[in-house]
Amino acid sequence: INTKETNQKPADSSTFTYRTHTCGELRSEHIGQDVILCGWVQYTRLSKFLLIRDSYGLTQCIINNTLIDISSLPLETIVKVKGTVAPRPKDMYNHEMATGEVEIVINKLEILNNVTKLPFNLRNYQKPKEQLRLQHRYIDLRFPEMQSVLRQRSSMLHRMRRFLVEEHNFVEVETPTLFCRTPGGAREFVVPTHHSGLFYSLVQSPQQFKQMLMAGGVDRYFQIARCYRDESTRPDRQPEFTQLDIELSFTSLEGIINLIELLLRKTFDGKLPKSPFKTITYKEALENYGTDKPNLKYDIKLKNVSNLFSHPSTDFGAFVLPYNNKLGKLSAKNREKINEVRKKYNVKVVLNEKITKEVGHDISNEIRIIAGETNDNILSMGDKENVCLCLGEIRDFLATDLKLKGLINVNENLEPLWIIDFPLFVKGEDGLETCHHPFTAPHPDDLHLLDSEPLNVRSLAYDIVLNGHEIGGGSVRIHNSALQEKILNMLNIDSSKLSHFINALQSGCPPHAGIALGIDRLMAVLCDAESIRDVIAFPKSHDGRDPLSGAPNKISSDDQKYYHIKCLET
Amino acid sequence: INTKETNQKPADSSTFTYRTHTCGELRSEHIGQDVILCGWVQYTRLSKFLLIRDSYGLTQCIINNTLIDISSLPLETIVKVKGTVAPRPKDMYNHEMATGEVEIVINKLEILNNVTKLPFNLRNYQKPKEQLRLQHRYIDLRFPEMQSVLRQRSSMLHRMRRFLVEEHNFVEVETPTLFCRTPGGAREFVVPTHHSGLFYSLVQSPQQFKQMLMAGGVDRYFQIARCYRDESTRPDRQPEFTQLDIELSFTSLEGIINLIELLLRKTFDGKLPKSPFKTITYKEALENYGTDKPNLKYDIKLKNVSNLFSHPSTDFGAFVLPYNNKLGKLSAKNREKINEVRKKYNVKVVLNEKITKEVGHDISNEIRIIAGETNDNILSMGDKENVCLCLGEIRDFLATDLKLKGLINVNENLEPLWIIDFPLFVKGEDGLETCHHPFTAPHPDDLHLLDSEPLNVRSLAYDIVLNGHEIGGGSVRIHNSALQEKILNMLNIDSSKLSHFINALQSGCPPHAGIALGIDRLMAVLCDAESIRDVIAFPKSHDGRDPLSGAPNKISSDDQKYYHIKCLET
Repeated sequence: INTKETNQKPADSSTFTYRTHTCGELRSEHIGQDVILCGWVQYTRLSKFLLIRDSYGLTQCIINNTLIDISSLPLETIVKVKGTVAPRPKDMYNHEMATGEVEIVINKLEILNNVTKLPFNLRNYQKPKEQLRLQHRYIDLRFPEMQSVLRQRSSMLHRMRRFLVEEHNFVEVETPTLFCRTPGGAREFVVPTHHSGLFYSLVQSPQQFKQMLMAGGVDRYFQIARCYRDESTRPDRQPEFTQLDIELSFTSLEGIINLIELLLRKTFDGKLPKSPFKTITYKEALENYGTDKPNLKYDIKLKNVSNLFSHPSTDFGAFVLPYNNKLGKLSAKNREKINEVRKKYNVKVVLNEKITKEVGHDISNEIRIIAGETNDNILSMGDKENVCLCLGEIRDFLATDLKLKGLINVNENLEPLWIIDFPLFVKGEDGLETCHHPFTAPHPDDLHLLDSEPLNVRSLAYDIVLNGHEIGGGSVRIHNSALQEKILNMLNIDSSKLSHFINALQSGCPPHAGIALGIDRLMAVLCDAESIRDVIAFPKSHDGRDPLSGAPNKISSDDQKYYHIKCLET
Repeated sequence: INTKETNQKPADSSTFTYRTHTCGELRSEHIGQDVILCGWVQYTRLSKFLLIRDSYGLTQCIINNTLIDISSLPLETIVKVKGTVAPRPKDMYNHEMATGEVEIVINKLEILNNVTKLPFNLRNYQKPKEQLRLQHRYIDLRFPEMQSVLRQRSSMLHRMRRFLVEEHNFVEVETPTLFCRTPGGAREFVVPTHHSGLFYSLVQSPQQFKQMLMAGGVDRYFQIARCYRDESTRPDRQPEFTQLDIELSFTSLEGIINLIELLLRKTFDGKLPKSPFKTITYKEALENYGTDKPNLKYDIKLKNVSNLFSHPSTDFGAFVLPYNNKLGKLSAKNREKINEVRKKYNVKVVLNEKITKEVGHDISNEIRIIAGETNDNILSMGDKENVCLCLGEIRDFLATDLKLKGLINVNENLEPLWIIDFPLFVKGEDGLETCHHPFTAPHPDDLHLLDSEPLNVRSLAYDIVLNGHEIGGGSVRIHNSALQEKILNMLNIDSSKLSHFINALQSGCPPHAGIALGIDRLMAVLCDAESIRDVIAFPKSHDGRDPLSGAPNKISSDDQKYYHIKCLET
């Protein structure tokens, strides 16, 4: 890649247009220059002052003659002004505005387009509800925060590409989104074709393609890929989303971890800690934080007190969640939430004041020693995994309360964390299910357990978690076709539906590993956005509807005929 | 964007892997180094020589002991070799190979994965047919030409992004592909949802979104976007394809043309002529070349001889296609093709030897003078546009024949060409149809003809053509909502289905213009590929089927139920 031509001068925002500058650009050094600006009417005053706005800033314009009448200009009218940059009187400097030392003395004003409909004003103090914002996204995007998010997103993706392409010789390959169903995967959208009865599936990820690229010698692949999942019931999900998809031949778990740490640190210069990031096993995550995506912002950990009890089953667990005793008695709302979580996981939960009564004085004292004297505790007992998951959820909402009252140490930094040693399988309703996906390699140290104790086999999968959000995950893949077929059989997946994939492994496919980072979630965490909808230009609402266009819509009977389908009434 | 960190050293292809070098990397300067290479077995000889290949080149390995047996290694086995770089004897230098001055003395060889199935060998002299190549694309991609195309494509797109982002401050915005139907557009795939009877449409382009981004203040937008069209009947089309989509506020036709010329020239350093590229009107293209995408490689132009005839209708045209008379009498095959084209356009076509008989001595002589004495001619008469289109098609296949016999001047350079002044409307079966799309602005000089002579109104659309292929097109857009509604009405499009779009124009939408470049086609022209399938990693075959996975497939009755559809028998 030839890099000589670029960056000889800073990027110019006005090339190829009829403006000379943006509304955020003029400074004292431009005084005396004739300029043309385009922008929206932000504010007018006394028929003399006109404040115009574009996505780069605000500029004050002044009208020194009576030929131009701005008194009737509606807000958000888009105008073109021609004028001369003049200094403001020193006592009129506006230090809040980057252009606050100058103003434009207008000699020509042209209305480029009128405003006839404005469902809400561009004022932060009267910001509308999300539904209305999404319905008129083309206006909502003019808010400086939305501009900032979209521009940050673009530049983040560009930095990622530069790192991968220019420094490490990765090749971006576009793979199809119209493909066949992935056996054993998430629900995939289907797309009817004019071949009667035949449908594409929209890919949930480029997984099969990237592994076939490894077989095909594209040994350093990446793609910023659009993916699709029909999961409209889960909150804060989108039917389509973006992931940075990476796969390498001749690498290992450590290779991928090194790559991603370097990538993230270079992309978010200075915002992330130095390598290596913290790494814990799935078991540690579960026993310390009650989740596989711990939020390390809060220094509060579960304590294992199982040993204090005599118990018949190896699945039994007793854990406590300690918290600052200054919080006092839990609120009715928190008790209610705890009760809900307890039911969900079917475990016993004992609040601080009831512990002695429940377990007796001796064990209660032991618990206080383990948890710390200045702490109150919540005790949970039952199936070990469920006990941890239950306390993990309680940890989350309790931490929020403790934070509000200043009763917990909060780390405001970004805290990335690797989770490794996931189980290869989990117990499903109809037998074994995959914990990651069917192409994940078993841990070589556990291969001997594959037949005898499959649920105790660890995998070579890894997740990266940032402040309690899973922002990516991947694995070393199976490259041996016999092992792949065995795993598919164990998962009760018909391997004949993946014959093209098995064939690829049999063609001399290199060992390989990869990862995918969820770009929407990553941006949301970095921009401290409440929802991924805030970092997507045109998001769908939670039930998959588009508030802007009204999609999805009915289709005509001609279309139904063409695609050989009939819509059923419900 | 911080550019300091990058490019301190050249891109490294072996970071994050357990190889030390690629198979194309070692030179005399590495002699004595211990190295690890991974590659496919390309060739073995005498149990002593092993040639391994990866996507970067070939390296010869040599075995100086009897512990390692390579005699039974199948071709395409993927191996890891550890050894020392040694000089080859000078008389054994292989100047065909970049690594031809050295070889690796192996001290360890590890088989990384076996080959059990190889449908064809990686030998250019026995390259299989396309169907087999596509069916086993994961092997086909190992051919050096496929590697080269995919890597060129990645680096071309990266250069485009660098130009747009770093030099001109464009923002890449990802827009949805699941959207509502575009009224009046091409056939769009539909995607059923779990909302009974409601479907998304897969976007045929981000057109509406990019215009709404202009309304939203993202005034310099681009996206390398996946687009979808259900056009499986047209050859050399794909159901999904990639376009570089660009839109700017406050610009003009000239602004976009300047931008694209600079972009293409920077992206294809040295391969394209200097700006400005040639520009001709649609009318000139039609009358000189009989097409709106002339191939300027061949210096052969139609001649308008309409004036030699007296004719009643203004639609009448008479044109000749002159060609070097050394070609002699046309072959039977060409005569047949000419007859087909003639029927298609319903015009009269007179071959050279029949012209005098058809039009008489005088006119025939005049034609010879206009066309040039050393030329033979094909004359066509009838509806002027059809006459030109007919001769345009004949021009194409005749030029191929003339080229074979060296009877035509061929320009081997890339010859980009802008076509402007397209008509805004074309006559359709049920009234006016759009020539570009319904959002294209009429030419301001022709606005007065909109009601009286709509077919004579030119638009502000533009196409860019490269060596006979349309590689892009765009237009200045309508930003005035009243004009937009008028045009939609003239096209008989229900504007209520575009109310969100009209509302966006009414919110103070800046004037704007844009373009889209077809990346697949552009790459195919640049790589001199026969089909766009040759520049796509995993293409569908011509009827939209995936030879690799067999998609599209049947879906289960559960899936049909979930999506409230029923497949109909045909």
